[in-house]
Amino acid sequence: MTKTKKIAVVLSGCGVYDGAEIHEAVCSMLAIAEAGAEYDLYAPDIDQHHVINHLNGSEMPEKRNVLVEAARIARGNIKALSQLQVEQADALLLPGGFGAAKNLSSFAFDGADCKIEPQTERVVRSFHQAGKPIAALCIAPVVIAKILGDVEVTIGSDKATAAAIETMGGQHTTTGHGQVVTDTKNKLITTPCYMLDATLPQIATGARAAVTALLNLIP
Amino acid sequence: MTKTKKIAVVLSGCGVYDGAEIHEAVCSMLAIAEAGAEYDLYAPDIDQHHVINHLNGSEMPEKRNVLVEAARIARGNIKALSQLQVEQADALLLPGGFGAAKNLSSFAFDGADCKIEPQTERVVRSFHQAGKPIAALCIAPVVIAKILGDVEVTIGSDKATAAAIETMGGQHTTTGHGQVVTDTKNKLITTPCYMLDATLPQIATGARAAVTALLNLIP
Repeated sequence: MTKTKKIAVVLSGCGVYDGAEIHEAVCSMLAIAEAGAEYDLYAPDIDQHHVINHLNGSEMPEKRNVLVEAARIARGNIKALSQLQVEQADALLLPGGFGAAKNLSSFAFDGADCKIEPQTERVVRSFHQAGKPIAALCIAPVVIAKILGDVEVTIGSDKATAAAIETMGGQHTTTGHGQVVTDTKNKLITTPCYMLDATLPQIATGARAAVTALLNLIP
Repeated sequence: MTKTKKIAVVLSGCGVYDGAEIHEAVCSMLAIAEAGAEYDLYAPDIDQHHVINHLNGSEMPEKRNVLVEAARIARGNIKALSQLQVEQADALLLPGGFGAAKNLSSFAFDGADCKIEPQTERVVRSFHQAGKPIAALCIAPVVIAKILGDVEVTIGSDKATAAAIETMGGQHTTTGHGQVVTDTKNKLITTPCYMLDATLPQIATGARAAVTALLNLIP
């Protein structure tokens, strides 16, 4: 009997403008489960960079914790990212949303000079060094490019973000809806999702394509 | 050319324990779009009953607005429920989550004696009176039963909730994963989703079954 493949999914909050993009997170989890694999959910136990009112885009005068808010997507079934050891999963998946660029990194503010959240860096490095594959959706590939440098990724077609990836030492390939870039050497899967103007079915298709490619990289 | 069917989806926040159940909401939206129909999102512009820490289940000492939080699921593309007129959609869909029982109604606290949020009652009554179909997932059927009384619904197999529905004048049918109860007279579709112990693919299947049945009731 084949061992069930386990994916560690790293969330960055709950909501596109200050956390994990909800549709990308749910479609990724659904794609993993529908492929017969399993997922465990993780998020860093840190304050969000800020809280955005998703109705009008304004900053709200309050604090929220990334792990506590990500628990909304997880229905409570989530652990602090500090608890994730590389032995516990066969692969890593990072959905997008501004949380990847505001909480997992400071890319939204500092571009190519961004800092990376320490647990995110530890986990990405440990999976990469162990030769375990990593998938990153939407804006999340910038986090991987900042950590690993010389990688081949896509974030769709946004020129400024693509230029920042090249500055960080990566190579960017322009892609459309549902297309996946596979960096075979680094076992890295990326796809644009909401970095393009997309419908929810296009997000589901992109997440499914990324998950299929990711699972195929697991021995 | 057939006119595209438009579904008004009523959210009750963002997160299973104090708002709309995120997986049910996203899977419903995805099922509507994949079926070639369209959705518009709405939520009442009211304070949530309370805010629950989804990591540990405790109540948090803060206030959140149902519409502002639901905008996270909607990526900002959502309107106040007070703006929904019956002419603007062909059918109504209510995902579940405790938000249906805490914000759209007080069912979680008052059972069969619950109060209904005024805009929710207005909208459900206006669609019902216009002969437009309504779908309700998970715990949301209790809201419909309280408003309309003599309806046939399912919330899965929970005996206490089923008994409350009978007290409110409704009839309850026990169902399993992905099963749909159709009340032909009232053009009402219900399915249990997370009222049963369910996986995310089972939620997607249930949402798809409910949306298919709902769309079939639109002339």
